[in-house]
Amino acid sequence: MELAIVGLGRMGGNMVRRLLQGGHRVIAHNRSPEPIREAEAAGAIGAYTPEEVVHHLQPPRVIWIMVPAGDPTEHMIETFRPLLSPGDILIDGGNSYWKDSVRRAERLRQDGIRFLDVGTSGGIWGLEYGYCLMIGGDEEAFKLVEPAFQTLAPQDGYRYVGPSGAGHFAKMVHNGIEYGMLQAYGEGFEILKASPYQYDLAALAKLWNHGSVIRSWLLELAERAFQNDPELSTIRGYVEDSGEGRWTVLTAIEEDVPAPVITLSLQMRFRSRQDDSFAAKVIAALRHEFGGHAVQKESSSQAET
Amino acid sequence: MELAIVGLGRMGGNMVRRLLQGGHRVIAHNRSPEPIREAEAAGAIGAYTPEEVVHHLQPPRVIWIMVPAGDPTEHMIETFRPLLSPGDILIDGGNSYWKDSVRRAERLRQDGIRFLDVGTSGGIWGLEYGYCLMIGGDEEAFKLVEPAFQTLAPQDGYRYVGPSGAGHFAKMVHNGIEYGMLQAYGEGFEILKASPYQYDLAALAKLWNHGSVIRSWLLELAERAFQNDPELSTIRGYVEDSGEGRWTVLTAIEEDVPAPVITLSLQMRFRSRQDDSFAAKVIAALRHEFGGHAVQKESSSQAET
Repeated sequence: MELAIVGLGRMGGNMVRRLLQGGHRVIAHNRSPEPIREAEAAGAIGAYTPEEVVHHLQPPRVIWIMVPAGDPTEHMIETFRPLLSPGDILIDGGNSYWKDSVRRAERLRQDGIRFLDVGTSGGIWGLEYGYCLMIGGDEEAFKLVEPAFQTLAPQDGYRYVGPSGAGHFAKMVHNGIEYGMLQAYGEGFEILKASPYQYDLAALAKLWNHGSVIRSWLLELAERAFQNDPELSTIRGYVEDSGEGRWTVLTAIEEDVPAPVITLSLQMRFRSRQDDSFAAKVIAALRHEFGGHAVQKESSSQAET
Repeated sequence: MELAIVGLGRMGGNMVRRLLQGGHRVIAHNRSPEPIREAEAAGAIGAYTPEEVVHHLQPPRVIWIMVPAGDPTEHMIETFRPLLSPGDILIDGGNSYWKDSVRRAERLRQDGIRFLDVGTSGGIWGLEYGYCLMIGGDEEAFKLVEPAFQTLAPQDGYRYVGPSGAGHFAKMVHNGIEYGMLQAYGEGFEILKASPYQYDLAALAKLWNHGSVIRSWLLELAERAFQNDPELSTIRGYVEDSGEGRWTVLTAIEEDVPAPVITLSLQMRFRSRQDDSFAAKVIAALRHEFGGHAVQKESSSQAET
């Protein structure tokens, strides 16, 4: 089939390649031109403006937006909305908040434009292994785009999961679970590292991936990470987040569902970004006040910064 | 090689079968006689007393104990200790506390008996897939028993990980990580179930196992569980623990290592076993006292039980 990929970053660029390998006709668009030229070299049809994207496609057009969640996605959808015709299909494959997807689907429906929210997992490995696609929105549109989903996903790796928002909701929870799993592995390896034993963590991760209950793809990545750098000495313990963990926690609160592990995994990421903790300063100060417990002074060099 | 398996429960019984399939000469012993007869039918040599176990083996004898941690393991080791000769090898393949294994290794060493603590993962699936074996203790003994480890484990699924206690320490942390992963999956599926969408959880678990970041063996088991019972309506949300989670938390405390997710996963298991929470009663009572907030009364039928 033919479709456009808009946003040729780490994810979108590889998706163009995988779609081309699958024999599809791919229009490639990006804000900056260099990735468009790379996509052209790989066999895609470059489009240097949104108008060119629309021009290169036959109705019903399929335009897959793969840009960061939030304003960039909102902007791109609003850019294409006036250029499209009733029956055309817009796909948001980014990590958007599911409530934004519900809202966008409704607005696009008023113009007759069909919308799909596609939770996309697989990261930089997707080009090789395929992407896991959780697809919500217009079911007719899903069927029209299915040949592309088939190419992008591994065997059994795509599915229509429900009406608008269901794809991004599922992806959000997927990422929430991922936060908890990562924190659990992280804590476990730190307990091993602090033990009286001199564990070879790469060897242990590898061992666990052969027959143990906790074997997983993430643990295979841990094996690689420890093989490359047994002490992880080149990596700072600073962990970003990109929204899905927060939304999972917010959604759990809205649902009155207890989710302490996912919540704490998010909060431990916040803690990882602090050089010092004001809460810990408060605790140290109060222990000093009520019990005369010693406090550690800020060193002057640190206090100056 | 030849070795005895002592304790023919869910794990030990299957290990006898896997060892027999691997061509080993297996002496099978158990407290009650029925499982011994079953092992005999499968090709093992039955031993109905500890003395018979010792009699059937050529020195250096290899005796693998596979009974519950704590008193049963202690008792079994003390039963065999006076029957063995210097150079013989005792293996504890159960989920013992690693400090017990350090202590037992030291005591057995005084009699010249070599000890291996073998963390064994794989559950009821081990017969088919093999067991993941984390092996600590006497390295010479490890080499003598290696043919049996090779048979019991899948490819790359056994490893000598360090001196006495290192095997059970690694297994303890493995189980701690497992607690965190299970809680993360549990929370995620509850958030999905409480969502505005009618997710097919079996289908979603299956989808996630094809290309997503959170794919794992536990998620494959989730897929099976939801296929068998989509609402899990036949299962009560009551979760036991068998010690390793507690020891992981205790060990993290001894090490001053923060491990909030593993700790909370254990505590959510405690909560799962309470019909009501006294802490929650206290909170409801105090909110009533300071703010006049309504409290829910115990129904008289519940109060009577």
